[in-house]
Amino acid sequence: MELRIDRQALVPVVQQIVDGLAGWIRQDAVQPGTRLPSIRQLARENLLSQSCVNEACERLVAQGLLASRHGSRFFVAPSPSLGHESIGEPRPQDAPSIRVHLTDSSPSALALGCGGLPESWRESDDLGYAIRQVTRTDMAGLFNYSTPLGLPALREQLSRRLKLLNIEADKDLIMTTTGATHGLDLIVRTLLQPGCCVVVESPGHSKLFELLRLHKIDMIELPRTPRGPDVNALQRILATHRPSALFVNSACHNPTGSSLAPAIAQRLLQLTKKHAMLVIEDDVYADFQGSARARLAALDADVVYVGSFSKTLSSSLRVGFVAAGPSVIARLSEVKGITSMGGSRFCESVLASLLANGAYRKLVQRQRQRLNGDRAAVLQVLEDADWEIFGKPVGGLFIWARPPMCDYAGVQRLAKRFGVLLSSRTAFSPSGANSDWLRINVAYALDPRAQAFFQAAALDRP
Amino acid sequence: MELRIDRQALVPVVQQIVDGLAGWIRQDAVQPGTRLPSIRQLARENLLSQSCVNEACERLVAQGLLASRHGSRFFVAPSPSLGHESIGEPRPQDAPSIRVHLTDSSPSALALGCGGLPESWRESDDLGYAIRQVTRTDMAGLFNYSTPLGLPALREQLSRRLKLLNIEADKDLIMTTTGATHGLDLIVRTLLQPGCCVVVESPGHSKLFELLRLHKIDMIELPRTPRGPDVNALQRILATHRPSALFVNSACHNPTGSSLAPAIAQRLLQLTKKHAMLVIEDDVYADFQGSARARLAALDADVVYVGSFSKTLSSSLRVGFVAAGPSVIARLSEVKGITSMGGSRFCESVLASLLANGAYRKLVQRQRQRLNGDRAAVLQVLEDADWEIFGKPVGGLFIWARPPMCDYAGVQRLAKRFGVLLSSRTAFSPSGANSDWLRINVAYALDPRAQAFFQAAALDRP
Repeated sequence: MELRIDRQALVPVVQQIVDGLAGWIRQDAVQPGTRLPSIRQLARENLLSQSCVNEACERLVAQGLLASRHGSRFFVAPSPSLGHESIGEPRPQDAPSIRVHLTDSSPSALALGCGGLPESWRESDDLGYAIRQVTRTDMAGLFNYSTPLGLPALREQLSRRLKLLNIEADKDLIMTTTGATHGLDLIVRTLLQPGCCVVVESPGHSKLFELLRLHKIDMIELPRTPRGPDVNALQRILATHRPSALFVNSACHNPTGSSLAPAIAQRLLQLTKKHAMLVIEDDVYADFQGSARARLAALDADVVYVGSFSKTLSSSLRVGFVAAGPSVIARLSEVKGITSMGGSRFCESVLASLLANGAYRKLVQRQRQRLNGDRAAVLQVLEDADWEIFGKPVGGLFIWARPPMCDYAGVQRLAKRFGVLLSSRTAFSPSGANSDWLRINVAYALDPRAQAFFQAAALDRP
Repeated sequence: MELRIDRQALVPVVQQIVDGLAGWIRQDAVQPGTRLPSIRQLARENLLSQSCVNEACERLVAQGLLASRHGSRFFVAPSPSLGHESIGEPRPQDAPSIRVHLTDSSPSALALGCGGLPESWRESDDLGYAIRQVTRTDMAGLFNYSTPLGLPALREQLSRRLKLLNIEADKDLIMTTTGATHGLDLIVRTLLQPGCCVVVESPGHSKLFELLRLHKIDMIELPRTPRGPDVNALQRILATHRPSALFVNSACHNPTGSSLAPAIAQRLLQLTKKHAMLVIEDDVYADFQGSARARLAALDADVVYVGSFSKTLSSSLRVGFVAAGPSVIARLSEVKGITSMGGSRFCESVLASLLANGAYRKLVQRQRQRLNGDRAAVLQVLEDADWEIFGKPVGGLFIWARPPMCDYAGVQRLAKRFGVLLSSRTAFSPSGANSDWLRINVAYALDPRAQAFFQAAALDRP
């Protein structure tokens, strides 16, 4: 069996073996119970060490794709559907908050429209090692409460990372949260009043819309362009409305994949300053973008900035953060302390160590490289199939695209036929309006099922 | 050096060695740099295995009490104050939410009035092992979001534990939270309206009062008796007020240590049913109580029940839960999902495994045994020194007691002289009224500083 290992790639060799074997099992639809070649044979044929091959097989056992007998021979696991779920797609009963925005709930279908990386893209080596180290060396991390602001060592690292985006935020102006959504909730419940109105991007982030609805806050839709929010439209809104705040997803925007242009950032802040609006910059996809592009928080220290590690490192650790001015951080951390006693010191400690030792930096570098390659390939396929693209993204997970066939019901039928789950038609509109555009997750889009779907939607054109 | 190991005790041998060495360093005020006897010698003199002694020394290095040179010889660490903090008391800069209720902030003082177990009482073996296992075997646990209700395997275990308290709650009527405070916040923000009034116990839990104030909810004080809330007083309140809810801390009440009597539980529920009040039962100290005593949720499935693992296993994992009827759980989990995307699947996975393999059950059994012994000893000392006791507690961390000397300022001066931190005079009153009663944390109260303080407060009597 040839595994095609690239020793120059940023992806670790063991992960490449895992991907290679998983691809063989899934794409070739190998029968459960099929015996794998021996570790020794796989190692010899692919010029690998036996320990690397063994490690990869153990991980596939943990993922449920392989089973082992007598500790040394590996077999394809009896329940291939279990393997499918663990490797790629969120399971419906376990991830309704993702699944709810997809148009089907078949567990074996490809989650082409979902909002995160597949599990097969995640890397467990450094994360697992950091976690094990904390259990052995950091008794306070294992047992004690964190502070409302969060672990000082972590905030120090976050402050350094923000400098790379030209955002100056001292560690005492940064507060950790249990994910970006928790940060947004604290901002909304503390800084905004029920009944007020705010400006949100359209299309935009459905979780934000749900949160604002929960807080009984009215939304005014601001069209998103490939260069950021439509500034002229904002000017027209401000002629007739008095919104309290503006929410912007600066980089690798969800769902369009577009990033804010510097000129737009400047003009936005001129308008929001003039009208005394609070600006909330949601930047959870920041680390999927290689070079530092425009950030509102880099231009104005009053911008409330929200970040997260759920998209890159792990959604399970629940660590995000908010950076803002002193009075805002003081109010947010007071409310955070009263409503939760602080986040998980353990998870904060793990993240601090991955940031300090460079493992996180290398992880996102590998993820970006892989995403960039896949994105270019997917864009080519979509263009060849005459799909309409909403500005070619330069980073991130998403491409916002419209199939050449006009009939949405037909598109949905095709998706179902090819085992592909699409994003919901209404999820990205603040008012729940229908859209013909689809959010395409680059990390799922090179799967043969997605490729077949893209082609078919072109052929079926009226 | 004699370590007095008790092989029949529930406390693991390694932990006993840690305690013994830490006690030697702290109580004998050993000079920094002092060399420990060799591992071999310590093992031989105390009939221990060398690996146990070595493991204990490594843990003391992690705690900052010992330092090692050349990997095999151990010395008392250069900064004994650091060791002090890590071993026993919360550090002020890291735990303001605890420290804020104490009357001093000297880091080396004894936190006699604090609300949790000292770090030296926590046990890292099983917890560390469970965490390491999850990193090796549970890829979904490492990376994926949990669900708004929480990990099914954990809720299954929680359902079984609640049965031991005669509370019938199917796993789908249980929702995990990031600690009990998060659960209370979700309850208050979802089920109560700003401006409404609720009944709270006095004295009671200061974090609850802060939370209700944040939500602009008025509090009506209900006196706590040694057998639970004062039912006659509740009847008088209900003659003139229309409160929406009642909050009760059933077992090992904070701060009095008292537990609800069955007859009181029955009468409470008759009154709250008649007046259509929501009942919230805060039971975060449940596992410090050995036998199943009265629980409101055992008598009435409409009671909203809040539990936590922060007091026993770890405050750092941030796992608590709420059990309630179907419509309440549906509303709470919807709000939880929108405001946080769910808790840490990793931490939920770790807890599920500790509950499933019995390690948690054994942990709390050891903690209870140790607390029971210490509580009896402390009660005897307080009685001998003529302190007034608010009903002798049968479980939990707290004794609520009043020193024989009437002058509170004098009591505070004495506490300062003996290096003891008292609980705040006002923290346990919903209205912030002064009290002469002190919350005494049993786990700190056998320290010689506390003992000296108890005696001195008796001698200084006018």
